[in-house]
Amino acid sequence: MIERGRRSRPFYVPVSTEVAVFEAAYRQGLSILLKGPTGCGKTRFVEAMAHDLDRPLITVSCHDDLTTADLVGRYLLRGGETEWVDGPLTRAVREGAICYLDEVVEARQDTTVVLHPLADHRRRLPIERLGVTVDAAAGFGLVVSYNPGYQSVLKDLKDSTRQRMVAIEFGYPAAHVEEGIVVAEAGVSAVYAADLVRLAQAIRRLETGGLREVASTRVLIAAARLTTEGLSPRVAARAAIAGPLTDDPVVSRGLVEMIDIYLPEFLA
Amino acid sequence: MIERGRRSRPFYVPVSTEVAVFEAAYRQGLSILLKGPTGCGKTRFVEAMAHDLDRPLITVSCHDDLTTADLVGRYLLRGGETEWVDGPLTRAVREGAICYLDEVVEARQDTTVVLHPLADHRRRLPIERLGVTVDAAAGFGLVVSYNPGYQSVLKDLKDSTRQRMVAIEFGYPAAHVEEGIVVAEAGVSAVYAADLVRLAQAIRRLETGGLREVASTRVLIAAARLTTEGLSPRVAARAAIAGPLTDDPVVSRGLVEMIDIYLPEFLA
Amino acid sequence: MIERGRRSRPFYVPVSTEVAVFEAAYRQGLSILLKGPTGCGKTRFVEAMAHDLDRPLITVSCHDDLTTADLVGRYLLRGGETEWVDGPLTRAVREGAICYLDEVVEARQDTTVVLHPLADHRRRLPIERLGVTVDAAAGFGLVVSYNPGYQSVLKDLKDSTRQRMVAIEFGYPAAHVEEGIVVAEAGVSAVYAADLVRLAQAIRRLETGGLREVASTRVLIAAARLTTEGLSPRVAARAAIAGPLTDDPVVSRGLVEMIDIYLPEFLA
Amino acid sequence: MIERGRRSRPFYVPVSTEVAVFEAAYRQGLSILLKGPTGCGKTRFVEAMAHDLDRPLITVSCHDDLTTADLVGRYLLRGGETEWVDGPLTRAVREGAICYLDEVVEARQDTTVVLHPLADHRRRLPIERLGVTVDAAAGFGLVVSYNPGYQSVLKDLKDSTRQRMVAIEFGYPAAHVEEGIVVAEAGVSAVYAADLVRLAQAIRRLETGGLREVASTRVLIAAARLTTEGLSPRVAARAAIAGPLTDDPVVSRGLVEMIDIYLPEFLA
Amino acid sequence: MIERGRRSRPFYVPVSTEVAVFEAAYRQGLSILLKGPTGCGKTRFVEAMAHDLDRPLITVSCHDDLTTADLVGRYLLRGGETEWVDGPLTRAVREGAICYLDEVVEARQDTTVVLHPLADHRRRLPIERLGVTVDAAAGFGLVVSYNPGYQSVLKDLKDSTRQRMVAIEFGYPAAHVEEGIVVAEAGVSAVYAADLVRLAQAIRRLETGGLREVASTRVLIAAARLTTEGLSPRVAARAAIAGPLTDDPVVSRGLVEMIDIYLPEFLA
Amino acid sequence: MIERGRRSRPFYVPVSTEVAVFEAAYRQGLSILLKGPTGCGKTRFVEAMAHDLDRPLITVSCHDDLTTADLVGRYLLRGGETEWVDGPLTRAVREGAICYLDEVVEARQDTTVVLHPLADHRRRLPIERLGVTVDAAAGFGLVVSYNPGYQSVLKDLKDSTRQRMVAIEFGYPAAHVEEGIVVAEAGVSAVYAADLVRLAQAIRRLETGGLREVASTRVLIAAARLTTEGLSPRVAARAAIAGPLTDDPVVSRGLVEMIDIYLPEFLA
Repeated sequence: MIERGRRSRPFYVPVSTEVAVFEAAYRQGLSILLKGPTGCGKTRFVEAMAHDLDRPLITVSCHDDLTTADLVGRYLLRGGETEWVDGPLTRAVREGAICYLDEVVEARQDTTVVLHPLADHRRRLPIERLGVTVDAAAGFGLVVSYNPGYQSVLKDLKDSTRQRMVAIEFGYPAAHVEEGIVVAEAGVSAVYAADLVRLAQAIRRLETGGLREVASTRVLIAAARLTTEGLSPRVAARAAIAGPLTDDPVVSRGLVEMIDIYLPEFLA
Repeated sequence: MIERGRRSRPFYVPVSTEVAVFEAAYRQGLSILLKGPTGCGKTRFVEAMAHDLDRPLITVSCHDDLTTADLVGRYLLRGGETEWVDGPLTRAVREGAICYLDEVVEARQDTTVVLHPLADHRRRLPIERLGVTVDAAAGFGLVVSYNPGYQSVLKDLKDSTRQRMVAIEFGYPAAHVEEGIVVAEAGVSAVYAADLVRLAQAIRRLETGGLREVASTRVLIAAARLTTEGLSPRVAARAAIAGPLTDDPVVSRGLVEMIDIYLPEFLA
Repeated sequence: MIERGRRSRPFYVPVSTEVAVFEAAYRQGLSILLKGPTGCGKTRFVEAMAHDLDRPLITVSCHDDLTTADLVGRYLLRGGETEWVDGPLTRAVREGAICYLDEVVEARQDTTVVLHPLADHRRRLPIERLGVTVDAAAGFGLVVSYNPGYQSVLKDLKDSTRQRMVAIEFGYPAAHVEEGIVVAEAGVSAVYAADLVRLAQAIRRLETGGLREVASTRVLIAAARLTTEGLSPRVAARAAIAGPLTDDPVVSRGLVEMIDIYLPEFLA
Repeated sequence: MIERGRRSRPFYVPVSTEVAVFEAAYRQGLSILLKGPTGCGKTRFVEAMAHDLDRPLITVSCHDDLTTADLVGRYLLRGGETEWVDGPLTRAVREGAICYLDEVVEARQDTTVVLHPLADHRRRLPIERLGVTVDAAAGFGLVVSYNPGYQSVLKDLKDSTRQRMVAIEFGYPAAHVEEGIVVAEAGVSAVYAADLVRLAQAIRRLETGGLREVASTRVLIAAARLTTEGLSPRVAARAAIAGPLTDDPVVSRGLVEMIDIYLPEFLA
Repeated sequence: MIERGRRSRPFYVPVSTEVAVFEAAYRQGLSILLKGPTGCGKTRFVEAMAHDLDRPLITVSCHDDLTTADLVGRYLLRGGETEWVDGPLTRAVREGAICYLDEVVEARQDTTVVLHPLADHRRRLPIERLGVTVDAAAGFGLVVSYNPGYQSVLKDLKDSTRQRMVAIEFGYPAAHVEEGIVVAEAGVSAVYAADLVRLAQAIRRLETGGLREVASTRVLIAAARLTTEGLSPRVAARAAIAGPLTDDPVVSRGLVEMIDIYLPEFLA
Repeated sequence: MIERGRRSRPFYVPVSTEVAVFEAAYRQGLSILLKGPTGCGKTRFVEAMAHDLDRPLITVSCHDDLTTADLVGRYLLRGGETEWVDGPLTRAVREGAICYLDEVVEARQDTTVVLHPLADHRRRLPIERLGVTVDAAAGFGLVVSYNPGYQSVLKDLKDSTRQRMVAIEFGYPAAHVEEGIVVAEAGVSAVYAADLVRLAQAIRRLETGGLREVASTRVLIAAARLTTEGLSPRVAARAAIAGPLTDDPVVSRGLVEMIDIYLPEFLA
């Protein structure tokens, strides 16, 4: 799954040293590993960095069946002729773009091994099928993300891959930052956004038994947007927060109670 | 498995806030996750919503071997020429249709990852094989369904997929609604329909040990339709309700006893 | 594995309501699920029904590697041109035939999902590769069979498939019916046929420990036919009944003793 | 693996009713299941029957990756044209040959399902890829073999396949018959052949702990033939009998001791 | 993944007899097995040896899906014509290059079996698809590496492969050598490099419970390079050392404490 | 992996009856199974036999993915035309060569089943894809090897394959024979060769706990050859003997101590 970055700078407020580390690693040609939970803003961060560094961004959502050819390219048959088509990684290498592999542990390990000569001092991509090796254009950067909470024996980054990267850890944004994001993205009042963030923080303090994952910034934005269509805050939060977080009836009831405590029945 | 929606509005009576949530999410461009058991009316609901919103509906029944190409499209060889044929998801994206992925957890995870850029604020479908990205036409909506009762470690929606969606939960319809559906769909008397619904509710109150799943509205309609061909209510219910629900002789005998209690030997 | 039905009506005597249920379901356009052990006459029953309803019968023996394409059709390369060839299900849908999927649980689940839109009120077959949807011709009927004794976690009909069907349960025929079948199919005397049926009933009363499955009507017919070639009843029964039922020497000896008790050394 | 039968009648002496049962089943068009251990003469028996019945014999050695296409046929690309080539089963069906599937449980289950319409009263082979059904020519017979000792949960004949067949059980031949075979096949003296058979019978009386399988007639013939090249009987038996039967040093020493007891140091 | 060696000699200081053993084995035409942990300098060593021996170096990073064809070559379809393209191993054999298979245990075993006739006295590569056998050109050398710490039952070199090779074991370089490497590769002061090496040695003395692998020379260089962009030594070490080594919050905190002890807050 | 035998007779001294058994079996057209550990001289033995019998030798190193087509042959597409290319087994059958399948248990079982009609009295190779059966030319011989120490449930020769073969067991050669081989192959003094053999015998007496496999003749030759390049005997033995035999630090230290006891620091 490939996509180009959007043109306007996304709303991103630095929390710690993440911007400085990203820029230092990028300038040194070091690859970057973003660690953090679902929906905490890793994609948003990469988009902001690509914008600030004025580099095109090519994003690849990784999955189980992502092959090396999906990243590097393949021959396609067109009108009886075979024609080579660069994959997203090769395009990034040639154009000097930032290539972002989202949820890289989902990909098969043979896919990540192709990253090694790009990720270390060699900075080049051997394209076996073409019999050529492409040196990364100036400006090329490699960024991968993964969620340590999903880490398992079967799905893990190899150490030889990890040690080729500089790591940046992410958590959820601070309350006032998260409020700002909700206001900016959903167009709701700061008061209501603050209520939503307090609800999310309460949920994040819960033991995760029964919850699949805690509430991300993304689900807060979705809840807020539903209210702009006239839904009450509580109905919106049940649909956008409680529903995605659990299928367990008991846990669900607990979330609904929390929603009723933290959110007003109607918006002012 | 793809199919276009039917033209006449299906019989659907709203139970709770499901219609309001669906329409709010649809207008906000948020994707929708329908949760509920087999045969409770999820498909019927989507058909009604598509009708009310006046959008074409494209339904895909998901299964184990559904590939990304099955959703997005593929090159076919026709008369020596390769020709690109859009898959159902791509057609929905281009036409601004509602795309409904029924039993989405059955599909392979790489198939659901292709939904991410469509399901969040980006609303675009990258088509890797064509090297293009298609922005969703106005009116496009993504709806998926799944049955939490089937949920297993191996077959589950990824959290990163779930948190991109707004959830609507379904149960079986209230008695009078279910009676109305049976009358409308099978053309039987309200009295007999009420007997069938009482039988279904009794079965639904059973512990599910031995039962694979409780009686759905669909099997009530089937039983009712068999009687319009002259079968007695009890013979019809054994064939349409007891038979599909269990293969266990003991459980089966129990169901037959319930059938004999709740249903008359002959229709008035 | 596809085959057309034979033209002459097979010998089938109704035991219970199975003929009435089959015809009612068929007339209502409901799909039918036949449940019962190996060799009890399910195939014979479907052949008789197709004959009585005057519909062509297309039978598909299901197996592990039966793909959707095997049912629906595929493009074949012939003389450099690709040509679409309908599969047996598609042919049945177009011609209004009865399509009988024997031992349907053997097929992969993705294969059975293709049945859903055919099995419920929609009665249409989407053919993805052609990009068309075929409405079932008048007269089309879908019948599947399976053996609940083989049921396992890995091989089972999905509930969403089962609840789209009306079930008919089969056991072995009553003694006098089974005698009649043996006489009609093997051309032996009624006395000898009655001996064989008594032997079969004795075997069916055994605990199945050691026996793979009890003696079917089919193996009785085979034993009877061997005697028409001059084999003694006991030698014939060892070859046609004991041999197929077990490989265990102890169980085998027990069966041979039963054979010697129930069958004469020579035919009168 | 396909091969035509040899022309001269193999040395085969009937032990029990196996010839009568084979011929009766063949004349009745019933399929035949040969059960017995490795190297006991099943292949030899089928060759003799084919010879006596004056039918061509087509043998297929089954294995894990034997596909339905390997049995039935496939399209091959030759000089740009696709050309259908019958598989061995199809050739046997068309020519009225006896088709012998050796070690049929090794084949995948989908392969054996293709046998069903051939094995029962229908006697026809549907060839899906051609869209035709071939009625078996007069004289066609289906024979399969398997070794119950290898029987496992994963590798077993389905009951629905077994109950379509008449079974014939094989053991090792009686002593004087086995001596005759060794004399006829290896050209050694009757005295030495008798020594070898006594050795084999002693080994067959052992508990099989440590032994993979007991000594077959085939290994006796091999040992005898080695002595015709000048090897001593004991050296020959170590190489042809002890070596193939075990890799365990202790068991091997035991076999060597038995060899030294039963066989002379030099041939007279 | 193939790549040619770089032209300038990499910084490599011999620690023990590894250079003498490599050169003796190379001159004798014996293959070489490099054993050691991630990032300890195995690749650097091979590059230095290839430089000193004045041979081209062809490196292949091995992975799960590396096939024999990936090493040996394959036919490609180009403009309707099939054309053979040598794989990296074949190129090395023809050109007399040193072929380095990095992390060879990652490759499938069938891939390593192709190395046998090259690795022993025969020194030739049979290319089955071409039907030819290529004798290794003078100067050809085969070098493989693996990390014994990753050794598992599933992923291991076969003994028949190991016993065809001469083994050289690697550990981390001595302190003064490692300092020199950090200074040379990152351009930092010897004092700061010594601090980093002391930190690495402290980490290497830890029990590895919680740590995935100890700090390699590679991560020290990355940390040092980040400081040349203005990051403080501690922020750089968190990103380049602690982040890649663990995802466990407790272990991570321990590493951060060690970083704060061994590294200054600011560079002098 | 295929290769032709070398022309000069390899150094091989018979230990027991192996030459007589091989020649007797070969002359009788019986297939031969060589059993023994890695590097004990099985390949060398077959090369000597082929030389003595004046037959070409075709060797195939077996592995997991060796298919029947790899042995028998396949159609290749060349310049738009399909062309049949014989595999190594077919070439041996046509030319009357000796075909040696090294480590045959590594191959898939379906691959070994193709050997059956060649291995028994039939001596013919059915080539299914060509629709022909090739009778083995005079002089054809089939030899397979395997290492009983590797024997496992998953990887084992089928009994039906074993009982078609005559077995020859191999151990390591006697001391004076092994010394002779080391002297002849590495060109070192008899005194040093005797030291190496004494070391190997000491290692072979060890319990194998910790050792993967004991020292083969092959590793002795490698150690000896390293000293001809100027390495000391102890450094050479560490690299060529201890390194390949173990990765365990404790076991490794034990081996190094044995090396220091049995081998001099410098060659005289």
